[in-house]
Amino acid sequence: MKKSVFSMSALTLAIGVSMSGLALNTHAGEPTMSEADFETTKALYFQRCAGCHGVLRKGATGKSLEPKNTKKLGQKRLERIIALGTEGGMNNFDDIFSKKEINMLATYIQMEPPIPPEMNLALMKERWKTMVKPEDYPTKPMHGLNWENFFVVILRDEGKMGIIDGDTKKVIAKIDTGYAVHVAKESSDGRFWYTQGRDGKMTKIDLWMNPPQVVAETQIAYDARDVAVSHYGEWKDKYVIGGAYWPPHFAILDAKTMEPLKVVSTRGVNVDGEYVNEARVAAIYNTPTAPTWIVAVKELGQLWQVDYSDLDNLRIEMINSHKFLHDGFFDPTQQYFQIAANASNRMEIMDATNRKFVASIETGKKPHPGPGANWIDPKCGPVGGTVHLGEGRMTAWGNDPKGHPDHAWKVCYSVETDGPGVFLRTHPKSDNVWMDQTKHPEPEVQQSVQVMDKKTREIIKTIRVTEHPKAAAVHMEFNKDGDEVWVSVWARGKGDRAKGEIVVYDAKTLKEKARIKNLETPTGKFNVYNRVHHVG
Amino acid sequence: MKKSVFSMSALTLAIGVSMSGLALNTHAGEPTMSEADFETTKALYFQRCAGCHGVLRKGATGKSLEPKNTKKLGQKRLERIIALGTEGGMNNFDDIFSKKEINMLATYIQMEPPIPPEMNLALMKERWKTMVKPEDYPTKPMHGLNWENFFVVILRDEGKMGIIDGDTKKVIAKIDTGYAVHVAKESSDGRFWYTQGRDGKMTKIDLWMNPPQVVAETQIAYDARDVAVSHYGEWKDKYVIGGAYWPPHFAILDAKTMEPLKVVSTRGVNVDGEYVNEARVAAIYNTPTAPTWIVAVKELGQLWQVDYSDLDNLRIEMINSHKFLHDGFFDPTQQYFQIAANASNRMEIMDATNRKFVASIETGKKPHPGPGANWIDPKCGPVGGTVHLGEGRMTAWGNDPKGHPDHAWKVCYSVETDGPGVFLRTHPKSDNVWMDQTKHPEPEVQQSVQVMDKKTREIIKTIRVTEHPKAAAVHMEFNKDGDEVWVSVWARGKGDRAKGEIVVYDAKTLKEKARIKNLETPTGKFNVYNRVHHVG
Repeated sequence: MKKSVFSMSALTLAIGVSMSGLALNTHAGEPTMSEADFETTKALYFQRCAGCHGVLRKGATGKSLEPKNTKKLGQKRLERIIALGTEGGMNNFDDIFSKKEINMLATYIQMEPPIPPEMNLALMKERWKTMVKPEDYPTKPMHGLNWENFFVVILRDEGKMGIIDGDTKKVIAKIDTGYAVHVAKESSDGRFWYTQGRDGKMTKIDLWMNPPQVVAETQIAYDARDVAVSHYGEWKDKYVIGGAYWPPHFAILDAKTMEPLKVVSTRGVNVDGEYVNEARVAAIYNTPTAPTWIVAVKELGQLWQVDYSDLDNLRIEMINSHKFLHDGFFDPTQQYFQIAANASNRMEIMDATNRKFVASIETGKKPHPGPGANWIDPKCGPVGGTVHLGEGRMTAWGNDPKGHPDHAWKVCYSVETDGPGVFLRTHPKSDNVWMDQTKHPEPEVQQSVQVMDKKTREIIKTIRVTEHPKAAAVHMEFNKDGDEVWVSVWARGKGDRAKGEIVVYDAKTLKEKARIKNLETPTGKFNVYNRVHHVG
Repeated sequence: MKKSVFSMSALTLAIGVSMSGLALNTHAGEPTMSEADFETTKALYFQRCAGCHGVLRKGATGKSLEPKNTKKLGQKRLERIIALGTEGGMNNFDDIFSKKEINMLATYIQMEPPIPPEMNLALMKERWKTMVKPEDYPTKPMHGLNWENFFVVILRDEGKMGIIDGDTKKVIAKIDTGYAVHVAKESSDGRFWYTQGRDGKMTKIDLWMNPPQVVAETQIAYDARDVAVSHYGEWKDKYVIGGAYWPPHFAILDAKTMEPLKVVSTRGVNVDGEYVNEARVAAIYNTPTAPTWIVAVKELGQLWQVDYSDLDNLRIEMINSHKFLHDGFFDPTQQYFQIAANASNRMEIMDATNRKFVASIETGKKPHPGPGANWIDPKCGPVGGTVHLGEGRMTAWGNDPKGHPDHAWKVCYSVETDGPGVFLRTHPKSDNVWMDQTKHPEPEVQQSVQVMDKKTREIIKTIRVTEHPKAAAVHMEFNKDGDEVWVSVWARGKGDRAKGEIVVYDAKTLKEKARIKNLETPTGKFNVYNRVHHVG
């Protein structure tokens, strides 16, 4: 808990800078609160709400929460929505916030949003720390374990990454990182893992150390989401990029030392021709077929293909697609990138080799593929698939324009699930696609994952992963051999955090095989081998 | 005068939108003024000061005028500076502003700057007007004149463009355009001229009509400076781009119809790693050797090479150079682009074919080449040259890396002039380089241009162009045959505007040949043939 509390204080401090100029609204009938409550609530909003609704509250995945809109709903209705969630994909928050917190949040979002400060390159350099110098890194793995089957696990609300041995199911290390790491990405050989905390802290973890540990870190933002490493050609493992929500920018770092080198703003004009101040980096991906990263600028509806071969003459293709971009994955050939424009109910396809937009596919409500899934459908051939935040549905589309041009970039089929989900996952050796339903408000659905047969397209099993009253089942990852599926149990309530676990299933029999217990809020998991080799 | 007054009202209206939220400072001892005076002064500041100091007053070519700086100087000192100018390159304004206006401006710049509104694509489309449809354009010149020797002349403070027949010296037309057009650029054959007004209005003028007239217009900003046409390959004359100071962005239009198509923000992180909200488009150039424009983003210190071959997958190279970028010109091979970073006292060289930075040359104080000059020096071979805003000096550098690698991108020599200037100009048939001295505060210098011999590098003549008490000599342009030099007399005082003239000199004898009188504040001039064929 120590780490998490520290991060929040630092955050409040950082975001607080701009508050001195804020004039609290004191007109009769206007929502108002004490300065101390405002600060507390601002941190809560930032931590739990800003992701979907934006710091400036103009809305993105979530609705606009600008005062002109929220005041119409009023205090009571807002409290009810925060507590119980909506059918549009918003969680219930009554198991996360206290009644007082819900009350304060409902008031806060009726007041003018404060504008957080900028962060320049000099400050990033100030916050850059080296724990172990590159010349002191070990030259071979020091623990004798099968590290290619390690699982790097986000312990979200604890601000840690768990390193779990996939062979023995033993927790090898719990490593302090940034608060609520969103994603971790690997060096080209899978040895180093780079994390991006929601507080903007980026860390570099060396899996060869015993135990694995952070070797360097910096902070590139006050609110951030994603990270990626350069994997192409002569730039292999040379640079790492971090993408921020606030300030809206990305930073490029030396991947060896973590020294910040360059910052690029993503504020811009969206695909509708409107300037967007809060144009956030939703996600970043390394392109396997070019010396570039794909930077998804959420509010612009643009995919920026950022070329890292010459940072001083930085080439960017600003590829128009649709709003609001979220997360995506490559097709099996690694040429096409498939990403959700969730507010447009679309999957967007771009050709990363030729740096061009290709197609837009209408799916269900608010697609959210997470790391995605590619498999072979008996009729359509190679397909990609996504679950949805906005409805219980899995949609698959053809993604083989050469072999199956008739099905390419068209919906092949869709399957109803019991509830809206965040992740789906498969493995070439598996007959199935696994889907979570984390966004459904009912515990029995939220706590269950569903398993679909690739051939028959039918859901063959619904697995109740947990019955813990304040936990949801979320995110699947296969092990290196593809014969196990790991599912996270995310116990989110205060006081329940250490009750999280990972449940391991036999990928063939679908039977429970093991439970890895006492994990603090586990969410995303990254199997070293599968991520390095783009398996899934 | 009607036009100019209209433009100012429109401007006040546009900028005024954001003022409703402004809290006037009423603390004891704080500068304060009535709301009406504030509006008036805001328009004056915008019209005459924002160019160098910025709307947000963070400074660029001019110093920062944020209250934290101006309050230290105080009312009296500020009034004195505004009235008399500085040796750093700031004009005296006592012949432009009244005493009351100077007093109000000194107060205004001690108050918090108001933030002007954004302008989206939809509003640009709303303001798009068609006077003559493309299908109704004439198919041949309708006036039987030698239009390739026309001079397109900015009548700056009048909001007009003059069209003058270079053969007869007759004024063919005075055409309403945007307020204080900064630059006009030509279609590839020189028939159409696109203007950019300081008020963001862009017009398209057809020289074949009798008289020449505006065929279409739109507005792309509230404050703008430059414009360019696509001239390369299959995109020849397909697009026109306008670059803005506020909002900081550029807009791409259909060059045939002037329909606004796309807007791109230039807000970004500068070469020092700092976010800049007011990152303005200083100038835009068509690249002869690639399907791109070069967009100089002043405050970022970056040259953005914007590829127009695919607007939906817009490729930009963000080329790092130095702050603050201003204006530039190509070398004779059209491969290298040479541009002033005037606050860094440098000329920056980029390779427009390969889209890379090449070199940075230290010059004198605040170089300002305007349209620039290239010629052959007896020792260094091909050179480019610039005058300076900050001192009376012309600096020439080698610009032939193939033929004269030892001199390439190094200062070849510099020559002292009597005063800081804005423009220099030459012609392959001329033995001389002409330089103005517009920025010198003394009338006799400000009103004289100097002529340098290319071979001896010596100033061979100082020509007093005017003795009108409120006029300056500014900007030279050769005629089509290269045997005449046209110099503007810019009578800037209120009531003197119509007393401007263009003085025509024999390029060989340097003797006065003609005076074209009754021109309202002529400044920049563009000879059709010379601009189309990159002569000079």
